Amino acid sequence: MTPPPLRLGIAGLGRGFMLLLPTLAAHPGIRLVAAADPREEARRQFASDFDAVTYADVAELCANPDVEAVYVATPHQFHREHVELAAAHGKHVLVEKPMALSLEDCRAMIAAMRQAGRWLMVGHSHSFDTPYLRTRELIDSGEFGAVRMIHALNFTDFLYRPRRPEELDTSRGGGVVFSQAAHQVDIVRLLGGGRASSVRAITGSWDAARPTEGAYGALLSFEGGPFATMTYSGFAHFDSDEFCGWSGELGQPRDPSQYGHARRRLAQVQTPEEEAALKNTRTYGAGLSLANSRLEEITHNHFGFVVVACDHADLRPSPQGVQVYADTRRYLEALAPPTIPRREVLDELIDAVRHGRAPIHSGEWGLATMEVCLGMLESAATRRDVVLSQQVGLPHRAALR
Amino acid sequence: MTPPPLRLGIAGLGRGFMLLLPTLAAHPGIRLVAAADPREEARRQFASDFDAVTYADVAELCANPDVEAVYVATPHQFHREHVELAAAHGKHVLVEKPMALSLEDCRAMIAAMRQAGRWLMVGHSHSFDTPYLRTRELIDSGEFGAVRMIHALNFTDFLYRPRRPEELDTSRGGGVVFSQAAHQVDIVRLLGGGRASSVRAITGSWDAARPTEGAYGALLSFEGGPFATMTYSGFAHFDSDEFCGWSGELGQPRDPSQYGHARRRLAQVQTPEEEAALKNTRTYGAGLSLANSRLEEITHNHFGFVVVACDHADLRPSPQGVQVYADTRRYLEALAPPTIPRREVLDELIDAVRHGRAPIHSGEWGLATMEVCLGMLESAATRRDVVLSQQVGLPHRAALR
Repeated sequence: MTPPPLRLGIAGLGRGFMLLLPTLAAHPGIRLVAAADPREEARRQFASDFDAVTYADVAELCANPDVEAVYVATPHQFHREHVELAAAHGKHVLVEKPMALSLEDCRAMIAAMRQAGRWLMVGHSHSFDTPYLRTRELIDSGEFGAVRMIHALNFTDFLYRPRRPEELDTSRGGGVVFSQAAHQVDIVRLLGGGRASSVRAITGSWDAARPTEGAYGALLSFEGGPFATMTYSGFAHFDSDEFCGWSGELGQPRDPSQYGHARRRLAQVQTPEEEAALKNTRTYGAGLSLANSRLEEITHNHFGFVVVACDHADLRPSPQGVQVYADTRRYLEALAPPTIPRREVLDELIDAVRHGRAPIHSGEWGLATMEVCLGMLESAATRRDVVLSQQVGLPHRAALR
Repeated sequence: MTPPPLRLGIAGLGRGFMLLLPTLAAHPGIRLVAAADPREEARRQFASDFDAVTYADVAELCANPDVEAVYVATPHQFHREHVELAAAHGKHVLVEKPMALSLEDCRAMIAAMRQAGRWLMVGHSHSFDTPYLRTRELIDSGEFGAVRMIHALNFTDFLYRPRRPEELDTSRGGGVVFSQAAHQVDIVRLLGGGRASSVRAITGSWDAARPTEGAYGALLSFEGGPFATMTYSGFAHFDSDEFCGWSGELGQPRDPSQYGHARRRLAQVQTPEEEAALKNTRTYGAGLSLANSRLEEITHNHFGFVVVACDHADLRPSPQGVQVYADTRRYLEALAPPTIPRREVLDELIDAVRHGRAPIHSGEWGLATMEVCLGMLESAATRRDVVLSQQVGLPHRAALR
């Protein structure tokens, strides 16, 4: 017997929502019943795209008894307030990454949801991508021995895409540590088993016109001995999608002939307002709608080059599956292309709410990832290792369906 | 007027010599006049390959007045003794990397050579490879702004190639930090300007049958702000030559269908003696001679994937040249294929001895690289940053010929 669809309310119809919209619209286990956003045009678009009510205020959304779960995709600094509102009304919550900008906020969110007796999940992050989850399963199979070292590399033009001022201000959650390490650390923690023990990082802030962290290098140690090296540049000219078969982060085919596109486009812009306006051409209700979120033929999402060194194999998640480089042979552990991109996020949410199955990406998991990210910023400032104390492992889960 | 060839004596006819033999034999500026090795078959082979005298003892080689310079390619632990012998006899010296196993030994070698008033160089290392030198020139041109971050990645089967017992014993200079970081650090220092300020590293020793460091991750800081991430696995199954167009470390074409060769071959071996014997099938005088060192059609040498993030370009040295990923365009700064592989080492030596041109790879440079390598081992043991105090910059040199 198929359980009824999860009645989901959306808090924030911005970029996070747009990225998840194809999934939300296509997933058979989800029904969008309400949304909240301060922008009237976004509310109008939502009401027209879905048979749903809309609100200017997240509090009203949370008070709607028809809403079972809230997807909190408002700006980072509002995550705590909006999760607490949802908890107060007994809603389950999926909150976008980064979970919050301080561990105190993360803890308050976890406490509120626990008191409410509802599920809290953090995502989307790329550690939901099936190739990473499948790599984790291959590790858990025991066939390849222990995980020893993980390497993750991503070179993108992140910092030169159109940004709002707060995205270039670390104190407001800007920069690549909050925005991009939140992915990379989540992936590396998934593959390393979750329980990191210390981190040493150096960050780079090289462009006075974009005054936030745009790059980093980090060494992450795990309990029991494994370690990871992570390298990220959002100032990059070289594009590490080359190492992913020119498949992009969202699984889309990349065109190498579009070299330099982001910098060229940004060079046309004179002021922060123009830049924000350029970004807003991609906003829901102002140019974009459900019609712009058709399901394309794509590969799996990814977050750059990742390789896991185990005793008897190196495992390399890829947009097509997992490349297994074992002692005597190498092969592709192929994965069927996604029919609904990013459905793993909603699958995990539905599994929790409908079937009581503990999610990987719990509040505690999200807090642990934020502890690493904040530790990276602290380590870069103090030039020392930062000891981690809030780490959690993976729940025992059955194999991926 | 071409100066006369440099009259070179070889101390140690082992693996280092075999790797440099094609270069030594083909370079018009070099004449091999003498060699020393304890193995009679190696001496006999050398006397037959070259019009040269041979000795069992390095001291006798150094006493030969016909020898102008000595290439010290004896086992690591003898480097200091043999350099001091050469200095005592007024010879110039090229000593193989790693320069020595302690900074005290490095300092003694530098002091002896300085007192003798002769040139000391350390090499071969891959930082002599033309693509890295050309990358350094592109940086020095100023066209691309400051160096901000360097990333170096190398995944090889280093630890599963046939080894002698001392190569698997860190206390005798075994393991990948002494043997492989000596290359990677040298390259990264060349590209970062030489003056590193601190290092944090984690090493991996995962195979009880090969009880030495086989992998590492490291964060290296430079004076003035640049930093580097370095990742190396000599336990690897994945082969990073894939990122170098399947051109091998020595510029040779790689055949991906030979997957797993090193582990397969090693699996046939029962004892350390058998393994050493397997390695010795490749030794000069015992199966190998000048006839085995023909010049092949090759690309430039390399040491894995390297990318230098500058303000206005990422520079990626490759076996064919330097891939320049600039703000608005990308292009290959092509380099002619080498006609004499590794000639850069001997060019730098001849430039010093015949033309008084200060080498990049001086004793002080070699000591600085060893300081980083030893710092990596110390950091891995103490789990802290190690401050570096013996670092040197690059000499002012004219452009590469």
